[in-house]
Amino acid sequence: MSLVVVGSVAYDGVETPEGRVDRMLGGACTYISLAASFFTEVAIVGVVGDDFRGEDAQLLAGRGIDLAGLEHASGKTFFYSCIYSADMNERTSLRTDLNVFADFNPKLPEHYRSQPYLFLGNIQPALQRSVRAQMTGVRAVGGDTMNYWIGESRDELLATIQEWDFLLINDSEARQLSGETNLRRAAAAILGMGPRTLIVKRGEYGAILFGRDGHFAAPGYLLERLVDPTGAGDCFAGGFFGYLAGKGAGVEDARELRRAAIYGSVMGSFCCERFGVDRFRTLTRAEIDGRFQEFREFTEF
Amino acid sequence: MSLVVVGSVAYDGVETPEGRVDRMLGGACTYISLAASFFTEVAIVGVVGDDFRGEDAQLLAGRGIDLAGLEHASGKTFFYSCIYSADMNERTSLRTDLNVFADFNPKLPEHYRSQPYLFLGNIQPALQRSVRAQMTGVRAVGGDTMNYWIGESRDELLATIQEWDFLLINDSEARQLSGETNLRRAAAAILGMGPRTLIVKRGEYGAILFGRDGHFAAPGYLLERLVDPTGAGDCFAGGFFGYLAGKGAGVEDARELRRAAIYGSVMGSFCCERFGVDRFRTLTRAEIDGRFQEFREFTEF
Repeated sequence: MSLVVVGSVAYDGVETPEGRVDRMLGGACTYISLAASFFTEVAIVGVVGDDFRGEDAQLLAGRGIDLAGLEHASGKTFFYSCIYSADMNERTSLRTDLNVFADFNPKLPEHYRSQPYLFLGNIQPALQRSVRAQMTGVRAVGGDTMNYWIGESRDELLATIQEWDFLLINDSEARQLSGETNLRRAAAAILGMGPRTLIVKRGEYGAILFGRDGHFAAPGYLLERLVDPTGAGDCFAGGFFGYLAGKGAGVEDARELRRAAIYGSVMGSFCCERFGVDRFRTLTRAEIDGRFQEFREFTEF
Repeated sequence: MSLVVVGSVAYDGVETPEGRVDRMLGGACTYISLAASFFTEVAIVGVVGDDFRGEDAQLLAGRGIDLAGLEHASGKTFFYSCIYSADMNERTSLRTDLNVFADFNPKLPEHYRSQPYLFLGNIQPALQRSVRAQMTGVRAVGGDTMNYWIGESRDELLATIQEWDFLLINDSEARQLSGETNLRRAAAAILGMGPRTLIVKRGEYGAILFGRDGHFAAPGYLLERLVDPTGAGDCFAGGFFGYLAGKGAGVEDARELRRAAIYGSVMGSFCCERFGVDRFRTLTRAEIDGRFQEFREFTEF
């Protein structure tokens, strides 16, 4: 079954202790859709400028991603650059040029509207709502947000996530949204806001899935070599939601949700092995399933 | 089978967002031995001063802990005080009065020397070595150390841990000891220094067990309420090593090592539910096994 992904498509400049790339394909929508494309059919909604390279569009199309919803606007593509600390746990933003993304107003192509799965990457909550409203008979909706919207557009955000089946955020966002330091209490408060399942991403430590009837801890993967953590959280989301879409599963399938969280962790781990989206140029489903099996082996007791 | 535990017995002053206690029983040896006492017979080696309270000795004795090796010296018991940050991830030391602990020179009572399990809490590496040398025919030796010894007594420390079956340290110590940022590479380097198994403690995120043929990730427990994290790492060590001693297991028992790591995480989690060692006054083996079962439930996929 097909998954519609909405969010930023960007060019990124990234410096880590492993090297520097001045300009490469990035953005939440890009990472989410590439990761999901290993599990299900994906269609994206985003906006790029005149400078968007044909080879980047081809990378996405080559993974079977439907680009009908990728708007080409006059101007430059969203550009973001950052530098990571020595242990890569801290990131300092250097430049954020929204460019054509500043006026992004997602409109779904007709054939997207009846798709069963929708993932809303981190954009303004009002836009996320408007996209949700364009879908007819969606089976499951998931989405992400960030500290800025939690702080500046709280009411709008609450009205937005109320309709979601899955909210995927990181631990500091979960604490900010709930006002609770303790993660278990934070999760209970957030589930009280509407989302039927909450996934708290914890970077290298994996993620925790909270549902109405308990939680599941998906560990992180110990990489041999961490090259660039950019996009890992989005790849978690793509692996998680893409797996669910591929299986036709929803919030009620507790067993599949757990497997989806492991696939999310798997995809986040592959993402970090190369700069940007480079790992996805050669990654195979066999490698993904091999790493899933590794997760079984290093967690069984 | 019996476990000999060597380390500090102290009084602690602790302030956390949940409250403050000016003076309570603490010290690595205390936490390790109490946690281990739920799984095996324990005998301790330590030193206390004139101010050591009978009720504190009784708490230990009441858990079946052999106090023959607890030396009473003239002077005051080791005193340490600290304050935790709002999220309890940072600790600021306020006072460290070594007192009688400054001249601690552990001598094992005769009946300790033939015991099969030895755990060396964090003390000067040369003292850890001298204790190891007093044991005859030990089945398994484990121990802890800290950043100070890694930095100031590196050669002595390397000669000491070379003889150990188990080294339990936290992630920043593992990075410092190995000179590697990447945890997998840090572990490989440390295993090359002699210890047959390395356990890297990661606070609320659990611990990772590294052996010659792979690793195992034990998750942390999501507490309803974190009251005081003091001693949690020592309780992990006590649960881990106490479980192994109770089973008569060693480094070669891969399956038991994994279970031991989960019991370590279980004991660390209980420790944090009350100030100091208070949780161990009422804790039962049934509660421990119940939480072990919870670990199965929130990790199975």
